[in-house]
Amino acid sequence: MSTNLTAVLDHIDADFDHSLERLFKLLRIKSISADPAFAGDCKAAADYLAGDIASLGVKAEVRPTGGHPAIVAKPNGKADGARPHVLFYGHYDVQPVDPVELWHSPPFEPVVTDHADGRKIIVARGAQDDKGQLMTFVEACRAWVAVTGSLPVDVTFLIEGEEEVGSKHLVSFLENNRNDLKADFALVCDTSMWDPNTPAITTALRGLVYDEVRITAANRDLHSGLFGGAAQNPIRVLTRILGGLHDDNGRVTIPGFYDGVKDLPPDILAQWKALDFTPESFLKPIGLSLPAGEKDRLLIEQVFSRPTCDINGIFGGYTAEGSKTVIASHATAKISFRLVGGQDPDKIRAAFRDFVKARVPKDCRADFIDHSGAPAVSLDWNMKPLAAAKRALTEEWGREAQLIGSGGSIPVVGDFKRVLGLDSVLVGFGLDDDNIHSPNEKYDLKSFQKGIRSWARILAALAESPKA
Amino acid sequence: MSTNLTAVLDHIDADFDHSLERLFKLLRIKSISADPAFAGDCKAAADYLAGDIASLGVKAEVRPTGGHPAIVAKPNGKADGARPHVLFYGHYDVQPVDPVELWHSPPFEPVVTDHADGRKIIVARGAQDDKGQLMTFVEACRAWVAVTGSLPVDVTFLIEGEEEVGSKHLVSFLENNRNDLKADFALVCDTSMWDPNTPAITTALRGLVYDEVRITAANRDLHSGLFGGAAQNPIRVLTRILGGLHDDNGRVTIPGFYDGVKDLPPDILAQWKALDFTPESFLKPIGLSLPAGEKDRLLIEQVFSRPTCDINGIFGGYTAEGSKTVIASHATAKISFRLVGGQDPDKIRAAFRDFVKARVPKDCRADFIDHSGAPAVSLDWNMKPLAAAKRALTEEWGREAQLIGSGGSIPVVGDFKRVLGLDSVLVGFGLDDDNIHSPNEKYDLKSFQKGIRSWARILAALAESPKA
Repeated sequence: MSTNLTAVLDHIDADFDHSLERLFKLLRIKSISADPAFAGDCKAAADYLAGDIASLGVKAEVRPTGGHPAIVAKPNGKADGARPHVLFYGHYDVQPVDPVELWHSPPFEPVVTDHADGRKIIVARGAQDDKGQLMTFVEACRAWVAVTGSLPVDVTFLIEGEEEVGSKHLVSFLENNRNDLKADFALVCDTSMWDPNTPAITTALRGLVYDEVRITAANRDLHSGLFGGAAQNPIRVLTRILGGLHDDNGRVTIPGFYDGVKDLPPDILAQWKALDFTPESFLKPIGLSLPAGEKDRLLIEQVFSRPTCDINGIFGGYTAEGSKTVIASHATAKISFRLVGGQDPDKIRAAFRDFVKARVPKDCRADFIDHSGAPAVSLDWNMKPLAAAKRALTEEWGREAQLIGSGGSIPVVGDFKRVLGLDSVLVGFGLDDDNIHSPNEKYDLKSFQKGIRSWARILAALAESPKA
Repeated sequence: MSTNLTAVLDHIDADFDHSLERLFKLLRIKSISADPAFAGDCKAAADYLAGDIASLGVKAEVRPTGGHPAIVAKPNGKADGARPHVLFYGHYDVQPVDPVELWHSPPFEPVVTDHADGRKIIVARGAQDDKGQLMTFVEACRAWVAVTGSLPVDVTFLIEGEEEVGSKHLVSFLENNRNDLKADFALVCDTSMWDPNTPAITTALRGLVYDEVRITAANRDLHSGLFGGAAQNPIRVLTRILGGLHDDNGRVTIPGFYDGVKDLPPDILAQWKALDFTPESFLKPIGLSLPAGEKDRLLIEQVFSRPTCDINGIFGGYTAEGSKTVIASHATAKISFRLVGGQDPDKIRAAFRDFVKARVPKDCRADFIDHSGAPAVSLDWNMKPLAAAKRALTEEWGREAQLIGSGGSIPVVGDFKRVLGLDSVLVGFGLDDDNIHSPNEKYDLKSFQKGIRSWARILAALAESPKA
């Protein structure tokens, strides 16, 4: 290990309280991208982060998109091409906080507290996803600059503010800012470890199609006593359609849904089988015990390599306390599909809509809202920066870093490849119990500190490895 | 027609503006029984009405129940038994007003306005159900007292405040106040006309079972990317169960649901077939065209004489603007069943719950809330006061009054028979397009005015007819 890296790692540990303070400043900003009421907070988060990143020897700018702004920060002076140039990606926007009454502390007042099992954790909306994660990289860069006066590789930053709402404006932003985003490859910090002690690099990501359907029946709410039985009930129509999306074996019933989906290569399947991925380890912590997916698939396949369909929200009629004998005029549901390689998002969306329309009674109407879509991504397991990152992670954690799949979608990875021609290395320090998208989101203090140290090592390893 | 009645009818027309003012005072009170936040308003409505009724020569009291209070008003002095004694029933509570943004004017600021087709209408929550309806009777009594100094029959009033939440405390109230509620028969004003020009007396009422089910899966909300496919989704579970409540022919699939349900006698069926009750007349005004009930039944049977199942509300997961890739921890639905003669409410509720429990995955849970239940009621078409009421209505409207069924439930009718031994005569002036339980509830000005005149005639007819 180089003298420089040793000094950088020592600096990270010595300065850790300040790293935490800086993270807390970012966590206090209510940058909820889904809700227009928080647009000002999203802008404030972008401004704050751009100011912070500017101290790393890069030229940071907040740039408009069709929605919430993005931050682009380029190396000062010209990157001379002699050393590796990485594009780092993260997102400053966070999920909504509802139901807020389930939070043990206010979601935008970060605290360090004790987890039930004794782990120290940071609790706040965005503590992990993605403010905590992106700050591991920023703090690693800060330590390199503090100790050596500069970064060991050229770094361009791209921090967006619409990841949690499907990165709607990112592709056009990449196209319009192509020249400023040139790099050799991308680093993305928005994924998880294998377990609390085992680091991981994610090399397969499921895609996503997110759609909303609204069934309209009568032209107004009706009294269920006067009209019940004779008038179509849009909740009945909706539940009948959604209730038919899976068969008794947990397979999605939409015609053509599995077109192009391939079985795992036998060697990967064998590797996954060897992992401790059981209902006991994966479902018990969340209070469940039975895999809900396709009955003829391993649990790990259900999560990493098989496409799924979930209803993320449903609403209709009277839902307050007590009872109301009403037949609603309309009912809505939000439905998302996790896609794997071979599935075309546009075809899946069309097939879903056809499935719904074919089942709507003739005197009712189905309307749809397209919330987002992205194909699945499979990364090259043999790309060179991946080996450097794997070595650095293994050294920091004292355990072999795993190459894994992820059930979640990070559409930017596909966009980077398509628009910028860049491969991505996905390293993150999240854990399955981080409650991202839920009340009481947390990030292990250990994830934050060793995450910073991991990136410091990865930057050193990339600087030493031949250009990809 | 007696001189007295002529004078009373003239007085009603001359005093109609004041009748409207008094109704408006009652409509301005936000007596929503379903929402505990409005308990004070319910009390205020009871106090106001008791004060108003006291001016009719009766002794009116607001009496506590286990929930919102009820008004009991008895004849001053002893009813001597020489003339008919009626128990009049109405309710001062109203339905919630959501979605309030769909109201064209604030729900508790009554206005008289023009309907699209030119009819004058009173618009407010409760304009019809049941404040407008009950005030037709109160105003008829007021006119008799104003013109003749007294009522033509003995009248006891019972006005309750929990009809819209299932009249939960009414049975025990009837039991505890049995002595003060003695009468020869009951008059109930909470039903509809056959059409805007044809009066009706309702002689068959469907019963009601109202239940709420909550499906719980994981112990917290989950990220659908990380857990989708492997973890049970309570919305998927709920929609699958509810989507299976009806078969392709519109029949309810709960085992035993139709036990005891009888076909109509051929003569009644023939009479109903002769009525103009078609998709064109009944469904088109609400924007629909196809009967949604059992395919082998007439539309009028689906509404009047067949049991039904409706989902009145459903909620789960993320339902705000935009998208959130969440798997909810739980999902809920409110389900109601309209019952007909022969169906036992307790058995139906148990059968529904068994149906749900048999379909819940082993690692999920189903919890239930009992919102209310009441059996169906069939009244004696040959009871004597019914003939008097039919004659009076026919005279007022110039069209033969129809004896009809009603899809809605008025549990009090069964309770009156069981607890007090009283038959009921159900007369009301509602119309199908009154939007009761919906935004922009209205009552035709004609319904209000001719409703008052109808009751004035009915009171006279009852006074002249031999005691039942």
